Amino acid sequence: MDSKKKKKIVNDPVYGFIKIPSELVFDLIEHRYFQRLRRIRQLGLTYLVYPGAIHSRFQHALGAMYLMETAIEVLRSKGHEITQYEAESAIIAILLHDIGHGPFSHTLEKSLCPDVSHEFISLLFMQKMNKEFDGKLSTAIEIFQGKHPKKFLHQLVSSQLDVDRLDYLKRDSFFTGVSEGVISTDRIIKMLEVVNDSLVVESKGIYSIEKFLIARRLMYWQVYLHKTSIAADQMLIGILKRARELAEKGEVLFCTPALNVFLYEKIEKKNFSDENNESLLEVFSLLDDEDILASIKVWASHSDFVLSYLCNGLLNRKLFSIRLQKQPFETEEIERIQNLVKNKFLLDDQAISYLVCTGSASNNAYYPDEEKINILNSNGELNDIASASDMFNLSVIGKTEKKYFLCFPKGIL
Amino acid sequence: MDSKKKKKIVNDPVYGFIKIPSELVFDLIEHRYFQRLRRIRQLGLTYLVYPGAIHSRFQHALGAMYLMETAIEVLRSKGHEITQYEAESAIIAILLHDIGHGPFSHTLEKSLCPDVSHEFISLLFMQKMNKEFDGKLSTAIEIFQGKHPKKFLHQLVSSQLDVDRLDYLKRDSFFTGVSEGVISTDRIIKMLEVVNDSLVVESKGIYSIEKFLIARRLMYWQVYLHKTSIAADQMLIGILKRARELAEKGEVLFCTPALNVFLYEKIEKKNFSDENNESLLEVFSLLDDEDILASIKVWASHSDFVLSYLCNGLLNRKLFSIRLQKQPFETEEIERIQNLVKNKFLLDDQAISYLVCTGSASNNAYYPDEEKINILNSNGELNDIASASDMFNLSVIGKTEKKYFLCFPKGIL
Amino acid sequence: MDSKKKKKIVNDPVYGFIKIPSELVFDLIEHRYFQRLRRIRQLGLTYLVYPGAIHSRFQHALGAMYLMETAIEVLRSKGHEITQYEAESAIIAILLHDIGHGPFSHTLEKSLCPDVSHEFISLLFMQKMNKEFDGKLSTAIEIFQGKHPKKFLHQLVSSQLDVDRLDYLKRDSFFTGVSEGVISTDRIIKMLEVVNDSLVVESKGIYSIEKFLIARRLMYWQVYLHKTSIAADQMLIGILKRARELAEKGEVLFCTPALNVFLYEKIEKKNFSDENNESLLEVFSLLDDEDILASIKVWASHSDFVLSYLCNGLLNRKLFSIRLQKQPFETEEIERIQNLVKNKFLLDDQAISYLVCTGSASNNAYYPDEEKINILNSNGELNDIASASDMFNLSVIGKTEKKYFLCFPKGIL
Amino acid sequence: MDSKKKKKIVNDPVYGFIKIPSELVFDLIEHRYFQRLRRIRQLGLTYLVYPGAIHSRFQHALGAMYLMETAIEVLRSKGHEITQYEAESAIIAILLHDIGHGPFSHTLEKSLCPDVSHEFISLLFMQKMNKEFDGKLSTAIEIFQGKHPKKFLHQLVSSQLDVDRLDYLKRDSFFTGVSEGVISTDRIIKMLEVVNDSLVVESKGIYSIEKFLIARRLMYWQVYLHKTSIAADQMLIGILKRARELAEKGEVLFCTPALNVFLYEKIEKKNFSDENNESLLEVFSLLDDEDILASIKVWASHSDFVLSYLCNGLLNRKLFSIRLQKQPFETEEIERIQNLVKNKFLLDDQAISYLVCTGSASNNAYYPDEEKINILNSNGELNDIASASDMFNLSVIGKTEKKYFLCFPKGIL
Repeated sequence: MDSKKKKKIVNDPVYGFIKIPSELVFDLIEHRYFQRLRRIRQLGLTYLVYPGAIHSRFQHALGAMYLMETAIEVLRSKGHEITQYEAESAIIAILLHDIGHGPFSHTLEKSLCPDVSHEFISLLFMQKMNKEFDGKLSTAIEIFQGKHPKKFLHQLVSSQLDVDRLDYLKRDSFFTGVSEGVISTDRIIKMLEVVNDSLVVESKGIYSIEKFLIARRLMYWQVYLHKTSIAADQMLIGILKRARELAEKGEVLFCTPALNVFLYEKIEKKNFSDENNESLLEVFSLLDDEDILASIKVWASHSDFVLSYLCNGLLNRKLFSIRLQKQPFETEEIERIQNLVKNKFLLDDQAISYLVCTGSASNNAYYPDEEKINILNSNGELNDIASASDMFNLSVIGKTEKKYFLCFPKGIL
Repeated sequence: MDSKKKKKIVNDPVYGFIKIPSELVFDLIEHRYFQRLRRIRQLGLTYLVYPGAIHSRFQHALGAMYLMETAIEVLRSKGHEITQYEAESAIIAILLHDIGHGPFSHTLEKSLCPDVSHEFISLLFMQKMNKEFDGKLSTAIEIFQGKHPKKFLHQLVSSQLDVDRLDYLKRDSFFTGVSEGVISTDRIIKMLEVVNDSLVVESKGIYSIEKFLIARRLMYWQVYLHKTSIAADQMLIGILKRARELAEKGEVLFCTPALNVFLYEKIEKKNFSDENNESLLEVFSLLDDEDILASIKVWASHSDFVLSYLCNGLLNRKLFSIRLQKQPFETEEIERIQNLVKNKFLLDDQAISYLVCTGSASNNAYYPDEEKINILNSNGELNDIASASDMFNLSVIGKTEKKYFLCFPKGIL
Repeated sequence: MDSKKKKKIVNDPVYGFIKIPSELVFDLIEHRYFQRLRRIRQLGLTYLVYPGAIHSRFQHALGAMYLMETAIEVLRSKGHEITQYEAESAIIAILLHDIGHGPFSHTLEKSLCPDVSHEFISLLFMQKMNKEFDGKLSTAIEIFQGKHPKKFLHQLVSSQLDVDRLDYLKRDSFFTGVSEGVISTDRIIKMLEVVNDSLVVESKGIYSIEKFLIARRLMYWQVYLHKTSIAADQMLIGILKRARELAEKGEVLFCTPALNVFLYEKIEKKNFSDENNESLLEVFSLLDDEDILASIKVWASHSDFVLSYLCNGLLNRKLFSIRLQKQPFETEEIERIQNLVKNKFLLDDQAISYLVCTGSASNNAYYPDEEKINILNSNGELNDIASASDMFNLSVIGKTEKKYFLCFPKGIL
Repeated sequence: MDSKKKKKIVNDPVYGFIKIPSELVFDLIEHRYFQRLRRIRQLGLTYLVYPGAIHSRFQHALGAMYLMETAIEVLRSKGHEITQYEAESAIIAILLHDIGHGPFSHTLEKSLCPDVSHEFISLLFMQKMNKEFDGKLSTAIEIFQGKHPKKFLHQLVSSQLDVDRLDYLKRDSFFTGVSEGVISTDRIIKMLEVVNDSLVVESKGIYSIEKFLIARRLMYWQVYLHKTSIAADQMLIGILKRARELAEKGEVLFCTPALNVFLYEKIEKKNFSDENNESLLEVFSLLDDEDILASIKVWASHSDFVLSYLCNGLLNRKLFSIRLQKQPFETEEIERIQNLVKNKFLLDDQAISYLVCTGSASNNAYYPDEEKINILNSNGELNDIASASDMFNLSVIGKTEKKYFLCFPKGIL
């Protein structure tokens, strides 16, 4: 393939055309590790609530790449020097930042290999690809890890106002159809500035940032922590836990070879780092939503009641009932429901934990204790958005909102 | 669940809110046969060209339902009587019209059970569901089959200007990001009329119809018959054919139990109709995109070269090279390429047919010999769009455009 | 014209199609009093900042009418009885609510006849039209004045969440291109309910209301009180004051006959009510933006320095410099600038007040002391948005934000 | 004003942000000749049919400027050298191409000074401004006149696929709400190429061009030549003709000083070129829609029946009845209607010509005899769109569509 053919344009429903900026980036996108992101839904099981939300991590990564390009162009036009290589590296850093996500994005971290974060695996993938590409990703990795001297490049990749958030908020709003979450990414990006090597926002952009924070909060409660999504998520987590439990007992479960490794071998973080590293990462790279979904359909007729009950429910959208409240649930109430379930399905105590689950979900629109979103006044002063905004005050915008949930089979009460 | 809860609203990125019009419709949507459509991509492998095109048949069916409701409202406001039951039946007919699609929508018809159309299976599903719902779908089935006395209801479900086409053109444009294909469904629907029990378009709507036909043609060449899509499709068809061939020889292939039936038993149309009907349909209802994708990942390391070659290619987007032209390819040219492939991969003649494939794709923006799109003039006259339009003439708009393709492994030439 | 022709559809860039709901409404729209709104810009001189903002009060009135229709439909579908006549009356009330606006919407109230509000004149017009239409507007007038027994109909016309605000926020955002102000009117309207004859919002709609209040506040500072708009406004107010002053002194000024009445006769509120009422209202109905703009072009070469200076400035967009701050300006500072201007242009003390102007602008996103926006919880409780929202608290959202401005000729400092 | 302040951004509802590319361009936009375009409606009286269509020539000129910038960027990225000065000149050429338009865009050419085209006056303005700006517009004028060596720059300004058309089609669709006319300007521009100094379109862009031509044709019949628009236009033309006639007879008519010159002095093309040139152009620069509209309101109560009849009609939207047909109207039919009008209004023969008017309107979606739109095939060949498109053929797409109209007072028949 000649170099001209590699300068491709991709159609994106959100931004229109996305230009792939260089041959190296093109080759990374074509890499099988990256192509795998096509098969991982950005929002896990949210499509059971919002049918449109089946967009993939592949699309999100391209979108974030596009915003990074735009942001770099804006900052350059304001007089900040960013070399061609630095720009490409920042673009690669954001392109690959989520490459370590497993099936259904967050399920893996909670059930398949409980102590392994997707960031950890993203880094492993990047290091592996860096070798394949003769070290051309070294600076991208530095930026990703926050070790590059130009700190603001890392902030574009990961901070309270990074292009990752900008893209996913807009994209998730777009595909769910929750139009109130749509943010003006181009306006926010046009207002970015760098002061003392730190990403800030021009004061004219304050209203856009307010809307961004409001939209973020709205998307949390309407989408990311939608009660039906939580219920479905609990079922999927239960399914994988139960499958691992059965596997441990030596029961035979239908599954793809890659999923087999994660069910039957006790994979932990350290396994990724020992000499088997490379091959385990390769196995991991074969794992995506399809493995889980294909297995669930088979497990739906498994002889284990808990497993088949959960799989059938998830498959045919007979989801848990769920209650949400601001206080933890009373032990008496939980036990009452556990007993109802136990009697109805004639289950033992251990099994019951799969059918009656509690937990909590929380969100912050803004984390006042992390790196702040700073607003640059016309006199050159910097102010935290939480104090610069007339609308917000710290106690309100920085508050963690936490809700407790209690899930159980429908029709129990 | 009480009746109030069943009157749900669904968020749709294309139309905003979609209201589910009745309890019966709600229950049909919740049915596992219908939920299965969530796992069948509307555009098969097109997402390898347009990353956004991973929308499902589930979304399309809801969208078409929404347009049907709107169309019925418009026709009623113009004085045409449509009873509540007829309206619900027309809505159900469109909701379920595609329920018989198999994995990747059209692959099944070409390779899994070659002589079984999706319409045939849609009807089987509807009849089965009709039993479950005590005959409440009888009129819907009549409308679907064109046996209902109000012919125009069938035309809304299936004709050259049905709500099926209106939704898929708009939806496919939306998700691919090919914005030229976007049509004004609401304008077209507002211009619908019924004359002599036949669906027609008011003369003011002629420009919208012209744009609809242009958009249809554009979507054919830019999306539905995109050369890269055709190449990917040929690979998938080859994969399933090869898998069936290996299965016939008794080779063991990883697959889900449902796929197993279709690979190892020679399923034909008549099998669906004999006494095994019900259970075979049930097996079919477990088959979707996931079964195929999960298998392909495993088959990518199968010992059969043809199978693993094709699976690897599809998985990691190393697709066939493809040539498109208006004339059939010369036998000499095909043989020349076959020989190159044969020599490179050391394959026998039988195997070569999987790696070098030819065929043709064609489309008509408008079929002049089928039921016409009639334009209603202000004086009450009806004219075929092909003659009513100043822009088109029959020879142009009604022409079949056919292109021949030749696919082969990249890097061969 | 037959009744069929009167059921017209209007194209609107914001909502698509707007259907005119009845013959009476059609005739009101065709009335010359209403047609006049085509010649009054919704946002006065804002187009000097946002070139797209030249949309008319005519468009806004049609848009608000459309939203009223939608709202009535939603409330009916939730079981609230609204008769056909009440619905038509509410639609007429909103259609005509702004019909009394004078040139440039708010300038009249501040300079042409300083004590006459546009609401007062709207009522006069409605009463006059009611006579012409044989009393068919009586209920509409009752609703407009808040005297109709169904209070919620008045609240749809005028309250903190009326369709007037919903339309103008969305429309002004649309035409200015300030996309952050765009609100989801359809979502808000779908969440409306009536409890105890009072308009409330279902709890699911709380995020949309939050976004509405944020958008409202944003539009205030970015558009309605944009500093350049204020500067232009001050110039226009000065022009009309000066023209009246010169007229009083007997100087001859080019103007249309209608404008002549308002410049040369001292029109006050009582003049509209005395026996001359009808003819004065008729004269007023001939006054619109055109009269002012055509005169300003001529006055730009008037011998009076102040008048010609201001007219030239407004015409060719050489606008005042303006400073905005949260505190009132110090007398010393104002005098310093007045002296600079005086010396530069050799003006007397009286003239200087036209070239150096101070004042203040303020806005509330939400008025906690007026009729509240109440949120209806699932348990039937009502809560003021200011307390129901986790985001806002009363002290923040209900705070009046006031800014002081100081305008003076460019290049003075 | 420092140079930084001059690098402004303008909000545009159609494209979002428009950046003003240089100080010179900024100063031209601020010039009073250009500011005047704010007061000239792009689509004349079309707002009487489509209320949203009150956008100004000012907005269109900025939009076309934006597209020119984009087009230049695209061509540069494809390897074509365009110097900074050439780019700025092309931008200025398109910015000022319509600066010579008079009130209501096309009325002037037909009635105020019948033999003076707006292009002629645009050139006069450009030459005048060139003097003011020390010759910096010389190259822009060359490009405008087609005298610049890089022919393709002129083609971007004026040809069958110039940025003028691209902007006005999209913008007029946007503001009228006729969404079928919306074209994908960015896609078309991305497909532009230059071959042998001539603007062509890459073959991939052929469908976009087809849609562009369809949209163009649609906009002609739905908007530009809408029958109600034609009727209103005929009334306005009649008004100005009648006013000139009365002026010639010495009757006193209310009008602004600038309009006075054009009514009472017989202005012809040569007047613009003689020594009075400069001052006449200056007078012309004071003329815009406001002068006409303000006068019409006054003339509506003029004693001349014809004048007041037409003015009242236009003002209050009591427009002519109009018939459209493909053949010229029979003399007998015209005379029959003339007699009806004569008898009803008791008019003489000369007056009757103002109330019964005939004429024709025609459009070509594509002019096959002018510079063609050429499609560049992958093998480097160029083909006229009329032959390259499978959809069109020359006889269809290049055909002039002509319609004859007959206008007369409503209620006559």
